[in-house]
Amino acid sequence: MTTQFLVEQIRKKESFLCIGLDTDLDKIPKHLLNEDDPIFAFNKAIIDATHHLCVAYKPNIAFYEAYGIKGWGALEKTIDYLNSDYPEIFTIADAKRGDIGNTSARYAKAFFEDLGFDSITIAPYMGRDSVEPFLTFKDKHTILLALTSNIGAYDFQTKIVGGQELYKEVLEISKTYENSENLMYVVGATKASFLVEIRKIVPESFLLVPGVGAQGGSLSEVCKYGMSKNVGLLVNSSRGIIYASDQKDFALASTEKAKELQLEMSMELKKR
Amino acid sequence: MTTQFLVEQIRKKESFLCIGLDTDLDKIPKHLLNEDDPIFAFNKAIIDATHHLCVAYKPNIAFYEAYGIKGWGALEKTIDYLNSDYPEIFTIADAKRGDIGNTSARYAKAFFEDLGFDSITIAPYMGRDSVEPFLTFKDKHTILLALTSNIGAYDFQTKIVGGQELYKEVLEISKTYENSENLMYVVGATKASFLVEIRKIVPESFLLVPGVGAQGGSLSEVCKYGMSKNVGLLVNSSRGIIYASDQKDFALASTEKAKELQLEMSMELKKR
Repeated sequence: MTTQFLVEQIRKKESFLCIGLDTDLDKIPKHLLNEDDPIFAFNKAIIDATHHLCVAYKPNIAFYEAYGIKGWGALEKTIDYLNSDYPEIFTIADAKRGDIGNTSARYAKAFFEDLGFDSITIAPYMGRDSVEPFLTFKDKHTILLALTSNIGAYDFQTKIVGGQELYKEVLEISKTYENSENLMYVVGATKASFLVEIRKIVPESFLLVPGVGAQGGSLSEVCKYGMSKNVGLLVNSSRGIIYASDQKDFALASTEKAKELQLEMSMELKKR
Repeated sequence: MTTQFLVEQIRKKESFLCIGLDTDLDKIPKHLLNEDDPIFAFNKAIIDATHHLCVAYKPNIAFYEAYGIKGWGALEKTIDYLNSDYPEIFTIADAKRGDIGNTSARYAKAFFEDLGFDSITIAPYMGRDSVEPFLTFKDKHTILLALTSNIGAYDFQTKIVGGQELYKEVLEISKTYENSENLMYVVGATKASFLVEIRKIVPESFLLVPGVGAQGGSLSEVCKYGMSKNVGLLVNSSRGIIYASDQKDFALASTEKAKELQLEMSMELKKR
């Protein structure tokens, strides 16, 4: 998917909501456990109930790997369903991969070509040749971890490297990578004030922002400091939407929660 | 597996060789493609031909994910085969994972409990709470990326952070993590001289060393600067052993290549 098409979808739906599919058999409604594939049954119901209110879905790959072959099968069905029934949706494999060149090339092929995701999250620690194999795919997007929303972010990401924090060094150096126009960045919403600094380095890049809601970030702060001319934001919510209810009404409950966020987003878009 | 048992195996086999199972359908002998599961058939033949010469196997998870459900099935069969037929072997999931706490906990469960690996490689960028969920498993080992053997290592890992290189900061800070006795570290052999510095910070920890052979590192240099009282080294070779031949004699050829390395290792162990 081109960035331009993604921006058009955001304008049309008045939403830059990404819904995280962190699907956990211990948390989904009990009646679904009788289904052939409870993970996919849950994902399909959530997608059908929320696709008009969001522009992106982000399956967290760990949750699927935790169920082995069955989990991987459910992931394949989920991305196939999104690509066939909702091709206007931007899909994110939240995988946080990153390895030496030939191995990164393998991951890129697996997630972009075989599974057909539009984008993947990547860890920057191994540098240029671990990231560039992902960037060679046209109209596919590589979402590099810059500043994450967890407490461990302060271990290394905010340490000073050559006069600036490591996460800024990641932003600066990644801009020199080949095909860097295919980069987006993960920036945790728990540090909305950092967004001012980040926008000085990457004024137009899309930022994937986790941590609004459950992890304590504020949507209006994120928009105030992070929104660019082309919006440039995908704000993720996972548990707050998909686990809004653990009863038979779970899909309806997810619609309501997604609608609340979409309305907030619509207002933020109109402010600017 | 306890570290003590691993050290005993190294002494007994006079080998600290780890064989990387980077199994690629484009590179394995053509006649295996007729098998029901060519990836597992290849791995089984390599394992049967080399298990007496090495102490560890390291499937590179990207290569399995690249084949989707089939690849995941081959990975499960490979680890099951190792655990049942060669329980004395130390198994490493080369996954380079790392995510926020509850997601890391998922990965830990998947690789340690469900698949039954003894260890997993982890990227440090997200800090403490992304690593500690792996460390809580008794007799399981978390192999943190410190200094990798690729060119991109110079992008961030060798940058100065608070007076020392980032990879040293990773070593220092990770020592403060809870259950840090379960940590090992990835250190690329292309920088054997760095091992002196690394041993000042982690004198006894096991180091997983890729990059000997194909990537240009020298085994004797690695041993000179990296070997500890308890050996403390696992030296990996992948392509040099598993793709020693692409003909019907591939298993025999892998035995020979592994034997060459084992002999070198045996001599290095006797020197000290």
